[in-house]
Amino acid sequence: MSSDAKAQKRQKFEHVFEVIRDELLEHFASNGMPKEAQEWYRKSLDYNVPGGKLNRGLSVVDSVEILKGRSLTEDEYFKAAVLGWGVELLQAFFLVSDDIMDSSITRRGQPCWYRNEGVGLIAINDSFMLESAIYFLLKKHFRSESYYVDLLELFHETTYQTEFGQLIDLITAPEDHVDLSKFSLEKHRLIVIYKTAYYSFYLPVALAMHVAGIRASPNAPKDPFAVASSILIPLGEYFQVQDDWLDFSGTPEQIGKIGTDIVDNKCSWCINLALAHATPEQRAILDANYGRKDAGAEKKVKEVFYQVGVPEKFHAYEEASYKKIIGLIETIPEGGLGAEGEVKLKREVFKSFLDKIYKRQK
Amino acid sequence: MSSDAKAQKRQKFEHVFEVIRDELLEHFASNGMPKEAQEWYRKSLDYNVPGGKLNRGLSVVDSVEILKGRSLTEDEYFKAAVLGWGVELLQAFFLVSDDIMDSSITRRGQPCWYRNEGVGLIAINDSFMLESAIYFLLKKHFRSESYYVDLLELFHETTYQTEFGQLIDLITAPEDHVDLSKFSLEKHRLIVIYKTAYYSFYLPVALAMHVAGIRASPNAPKDPFAVASSILIPLGEYFQVQDDWLDFSGTPEQIGKIGTDIVDNKCSWCINLALAHATPEQRAILDANYGRKDAGAEKKVKEVFYQVGVPEKFHAYEEASYKKIIGLIETIPEGGLGAEGEVKLKREVFKSFLDKIYKRQK
Repeated sequence: MSSDAKAQKRQKFEHVFEVIRDELLEHFASNGMPKEAQEWYRKSLDYNVPGGKLNRGLSVVDSVEILKGRSLTEDEYFKAAVLGWGVELLQAFFLVSDDIMDSSITRRGQPCWYRNEGVGLIAINDSFMLESAIYFLLKKHFRSESYYVDLLELFHETTYQTEFGQLIDLITAPEDHVDLSKFSLEKHRLIVIYKTAYYSFYLPVALAMHVAGIRASPNAPKDPFAVASSILIPLGEYFQVQDDWLDFSGTPEQIGKIGTDIVDNKCSWCINLALAHATPEQRAILDANYGRKDAGAEKKVKEVFYQVGVPEKFHAYEEASYKKIIGLIETIPEGGLGAEGEVKLKREVFKSFLDKIYKRQK
Repeated sequence: MSSDAKAQKRQKFEHVFEVIRDELLEHFASNGMPKEAQEWYRKSLDYNVPGGKLNRGLSVVDSVEILKGRSLTEDEYFKAAVLGWGVELLQAFFLVSDDIMDSSITRRGQPCWYRNEGVGLIAINDSFMLESAIYFLLKKHFRSESYYVDLLELFHETTYQTEFGQLIDLITAPEDHVDLSKFSLEKHRLIVIYKTAYYSFYLPVALAMHVAGIRASPNAPKDPFAVASSILIPLGEYFQVQDDWLDFSGTPEQIGKIGTDIVDNKCSWCINLALAHATPEQRAILDANYGRKDAGAEKKVKEVFYQVGVPEKFHAYEEASYKKIIGLIETIPEGGLGAEGEVKLKREVFKSFLDKIYKRQK
């Protein structure tokens, strides 16, 4: 897709945000909320929801188009986009609160919301209101649909799963207490799947499947939602391993930020891989230097990463993941999964994700 | 009711907590969560959910009994109690997070959860998991009920309303910046209704109405849920005004804590009443002394409260509220509201609440 077409697509999607933001604010005002509170909520929505890459939200719209096999009517587009913004609202809820829990400084190139003048811990309640907005919008736009309750349950379950992942992450890798004996590749996998893969990969596609008319039929040999999950969770895992790799290896020009996983004691794929392959001497260096806010210590950790072969092992992992995921996608019949005359789950939904991700450099 | 019968009732209700706590933990473990995380979640549930007065949760069970007009079967009791614990989980979600936002020290006679060793801001995510637990339990126990989606929407809407109230409260009365010009009895009313009345009074009764089989029928002359709300919101308002009054006037022996509303810059009924009746000189004293962590300043504020007649005005308010609420209750026909042969909304549901609250001293 040309960068022009991409920008147009993004703009169209962003326009829907303005519509739903105004719906939220109108409802808020209609409850008699004071002007000052209305301005506050507006600012929180504008600051926290639309400023990201919007990949998750846009992928709902893209997936609905692929599943339907045609371009969408205005009404179909709007509904798919509302669900896309539901995913972005969920993400905003998590990011606003994670930034407080992690004492982060910046997010998307601006100060974290809680670090704005006068905000502070009120940001906790603001994050709640971002979450609640999802259910207001679902009720407003999907209440009469047969799959309304499926959407509610999908958001509930994904939210809970993400919170599971955040809990394991927080107690495994607190920023102020380094204990590498808590780390392992298995723990990393669990954190990644729960904290990232479900909401970033499975949720957008499962929403698209509901809105496109795919149902889990008790007679079908395979539940299409289980099939989607079996592909998207490994895909999300692969995506996060790339992220961890880029944090270690990417230049600021390339990834748009300075990697801080090592100094922040993050339970990243790289440290877990290094721990799995380190000699006792290398392990001692990692124990002594990981998670320290000190450029010298960071350098020593990086040296061990190179010694144990993190780069080579990442490239091998990337190839193996790609092959594995292609294999999983090909368990879907070429003509799609589903009964004749019904909307079918298509390989293309997953391939389009994989193509965007494979060997990405940022 | 004898205090023995009360203790028994409480014990029976608490037993249900153990059942659902174990359901939550079993589900958590079945997702492959590490032992350490399982212990963490168990501790968070035990520490934050069951230790309060349980009035909100118990009132779901009581209301179902009154509406059905008979004692409940074991299964009916269990389901009503699950909804009661849903309200208590929602409250726990709010209290754990409010304590962080308010920098509170103790809650229910023990340190606030976030002040426990090693917890800190992880408590934010713990509060999320308390909220998510509600929807897991609703799905597990109510999925096949015709009113399942009504329960989901009721919890969503009440949660959002409470967050509205918390936002107005936080921006009207930040602990570290006193500005009494932001206060008014109207603002106080709005905060109280949204932050407390919906979840503490309307939610338990509306849940009981759903489970007892009361439906909002489009043909009925009056929506029973709107009628319930029209009584319970003023009742909740009256309850919170009492709370504010007791914080100012109650002795520690009586109310089980030391009132701190004045030193904490709380937007309490008493200060708003005083502001509405103060002379310019009294107003100057309030401006100079409210919200200061200083016993002398607190004493000066209390003197103004007495000078403007807060006690007399509270007693008059109490009488007027009682009469108003009785009048509202009596808009329900003596035989109950609803069609013949259906479960009717009964005056007794509301009277039992009012009787428990009227002229309470703690």
